[in-house]
Amino acid sequence: MKALIGLSACLLVGASAFAQVPTIDDKHLKIAAELRDEALKSSIGYEVVESLTTEVGPRMAGTPGDAAAVKWGVAKLQELGFDKVWTEPVTFPTWKRGSEKAEVVAPYPQPLVITALGFSVGTPEGGLSAEIIEFDTLEDLINAPEGIAEGKIVFIKNRMKRARDGSGYGPAVSARGRGAVEAAKKGAVAIMIRSIGTDSHRMAHTGMMRYEEGVKRIPAAALSAPDADLLENMIRRGKPVTVKLEIEAEDGPDYTSQNVIGEIRGSEKPDEYIILGAHLDSWDLGTGALDDGAGIGITVAAAELIARLPERPKRSIRVIMFANEEQGLVGGKAYAEAHKDELTRIITAAESDFGAGKIWRLDSRVKQEAIPVVEKMAKIMEPLGISYGNNRAGGGPDLIPLRGYGISVFSLRQDGTDYFDYHHTPDDTFDKIEKESLDQNTAAYVVLAYIAAQMEGDFGFGIE
Amino acid sequence: MKALIGLSACLLVGASAFAQVPTIDDKHLKIAAELRDEALKSSIGYEVVESLTTEVGPRMAGTPGDAAAVKWGVAKLQELGFDKVWTEPVTFPTWKRGSEKAEVVAPYPQPLVITALGFSVGTPEGGLSAEIIEFDTLEDLINAPEGIAEGKIVFIKNRMKRARDGSGYGPAVSARGRGAVEAAKKGAVAIMIRSIGTDSHRMAHTGMMRYEEGVKRIPAAALSAPDADLLENMIRRGKPVTVKLEIEAEDGPDYTSQNVIGEIRGSEKPDEYIILGAHLDSWDLGTGALDDGAGIGITVAAAELIARLPERPKRSIRVIMFANEEQGLVGGKAYAEAHKDELTRIITAAESDFGAGKIWRLDSRVKQEAIPVVEKMAKIMEPLGISYGNNRAGGGPDLIPLRGYGISVFSLRQDGTDYFDYHHTPDDTFDKIEKESLDQNTAAYVVLAYIAAQMEGDFGFGIE
Repeated sequence: MKALIGLSACLLVGASAFAQVPTIDDKHLKIAAELRDEALKSSIGYEVVESLTTEVGPRMAGTPGDAAAVKWGVAKLQELGFDKVWTEPVTFPTWKRGSEKAEVVAPYPQPLVITALGFSVGTPEGGLSAEIIEFDTLEDLINAPEGIAEGKIVFIKNRMKRARDGSGYGPAVSARGRGAVEAAKKGAVAIMIRSIGTDSHRMAHTGMMRYEEGVKRIPAAALSAPDADLLENMIRRGKPVTVKLEIEAEDGPDYTSQNVIGEIRGSEKPDEYIILGAHLDSWDLGTGALDDGAGIGITVAAAELIARLPERPKRSIRVIMFANEEQGLVGGKAYAEAHKDELTRIITAAESDFGAGKIWRLDSRVKQEAIPVVEKMAKIMEPLGISYGNNRAGGGPDLIPLRGYGISVFSLRQDGTDYFDYHHTPDDTFDKIEKESLDQNTAAYVVLAYIAAQMEGDFGFGIE
Repeated sequence: MKALIGLSACLLVGASAFAQVPTIDDKHLKIAAELRDEALKSSIGYEVVESLTTEVGPRMAGTPGDAAAVKWGVAKLQELGFDKVWTEPVTFPTWKRGSEKAEVVAPYPQPLVITALGFSVGTPEGGLSAEIIEFDTLEDLINAPEGIAEGKIVFIKNRMKRARDGSGYGPAVSARGRGAVEAAKKGAVAIMIRSIGTDSHRMAHTGMMRYEEGVKRIPAAALSAPDADLLENMIRRGKPVTVKLEIEAEDGPDYTSQNVIGEIRGSEKPDEYIILGAHLDSWDLGTGALDDGAGIGITVAAAELIARLPERPKRSIRVIMFANEEQGLVGGKAYAEAHKDELTRIITAAESDFGAGKIWRLDSRVKQEAIPVVEKMAKIMEPLGISYGNNRAGGGPDLIPLRGYGISVFSLRQDGTDYFDYHHTPDDTFDKIEKESLDQNTAAYVVLAYIAAQMEGDFGFGIE
């Protein structure tokens, strides 16, 4: 940090001589601080999440809930006084969940709580019974001898680690994404994984899995944590454990949903804009409150607070409710493709997609000359308990395609300690949102959006 | 307490003159303390619960799980070296749960998580759709005008209060037991209640409900807490809310299960005995770890610790695994009826049926002259964090019939702060048991059982 401050001091000295050195004046910083305080008193974000979860609820890509969510999004942005509201088409393949049942058949018959993973095939008519073969991790399965799982159901028992930054997810989730392919390669007839989650409740965590061309497509499901424990305890007794799976699931036809976009139109440079993003789709099991109703509420509320000011900001603020993030960042890719001719007019972008926990750190990905503006931004966020982190921000899943083109991004890093207790389960419901935390998020986003909209100069483009 | 101590001092003075004044000598108190410390190091109780939940799992009265549990109970008591193990028949009507689904049809279509209440009838073929009418409490429903719920589904939204002693349960549970009758009297076609529980997870709490002769039998279900919130939020918007219920459930034929009984045979007065009770049945949704696998583990482990001593205690210790507590204390009633000729030979009794939270208080229901022995018992329990409460103990649900005949009982009161988070849900699983707390329970039960088995005199009979 010291080195950066030194650098920024040098650059500021030369600011008048180099117009491209970004600055933000005190008047705007003061307004940013007022917006921050206003956000903490507002309830718009919380009301938006309540509205989405109550009036729409589950909205898995390609379902009637998806269509209802698009309709809701357009109406909500119009109702909140956005200057311009429109949609842009996003097309993708679909998947349909049916009934799903599992039970231990022998030696200790009892039911198991499972859920099919997204895009899993179903079991044959009448279900499928086979002996369980247990692996500690996906790597152990990959390294196991050829044919080891022949005719069996693979069970991967790896436990995801709890962490504030969600860092336990990456290492664990490969079992979900790739487990079916690796199990099939070893001859398995199905795969069950311990849910990728940190809770110990009787709910399984769904999420995407993928097949591979030329490898047999076998059914894939997640067990709730207590059921994974149960299976481990049975297996430890040394007798073969047989499980019956009955999963109805099937691929559907392509579907066209919409990215829903609302803009607060800039007064001086309306064609330069700041993107605040979140995804509108959810998995089907819960009502998508944390994933990603919270992000929708936070970003909509931040923009709405700026719209309440007597004057429009210099640049436009664009709130994007991305379609179908869950099944492959489809909305994010579609947006980047549709807007690739205006990339240099994107001043910066940030997506909220990690629940409703408090933000504790601001990360940026901007050109070096812009760091002093980021530091001033962080200073305004300081009373929220947020400090500046580093200049290696990711920006959020739906921004990956845009980031690939070189836009600058910010990550407002949330406390995700509990996020994976609820992630992709029926338990992702409105009661899990704490209003105070959600408001703190809105306060941070409004500071980011307002400063980016008002600054002189920009955050750069083509950043490594 | 002071008054009691004064009284006991007087009685002790006259102890030699009155043989019936109960006493316990220091040698036995010392052994009781050793047993207590041994219990804290033992893992038998924990292993017993693990065994029951893994090898049997759900064991609702009258199901194959019930039969498996009886078999398991007999084998477990024999394996642990009880001197005598036997079963006694318990006959009762049965009920069968089928599939159960609910969804809001209008104005905001989305699924709801429900579960049928025990002995509810099913919905007609194809389900039942009707408008919701909301009541704060059962009392509000009772006091509402005639015909107010005509053709509607009653929704009682009352929230159970969290409390260490579980005192929120009593006031809340009447809506479950009596709601269907009262709703039907007002013309309702079905009833849904907010689950009788203290959690906010997407799992509904089942439990018994009852019909009344001459009142229409309507389907009765519980909503998970988040779903009850959702319904409230929808209703608050002012439009009629229509819900579709599809519940398969039916009464079955009578079934004969067994009370499973294991005895550590007394060396001097084998026909006088101490009862340690718990119930072997569970609801069908979870694996019955807290309700009441924990009680089974605690009482079995306490007796087993006494059996490890070089000598048998003077009196017998009888562990009773009661059949079918959940659907009407049927095992408790059967035991009292079958043993009504030997009631005066029951020295005392205590049932563990409130999960695995730590015990914080010892209550008794004994004759006044025996209070000094109880105080000495409490003293041995003091290092466990247990203090003496009062002489108005209830003893536990399955002991109600015996208590009605006048036997003395003890209540070892557990911390039930979290008990109703899991009670009667799929989430009542082994991972919810903390070994340290379970061991503390065993330690208290072994002190109680050993002192009662060794004392001179008794705790009285025919106590008010």
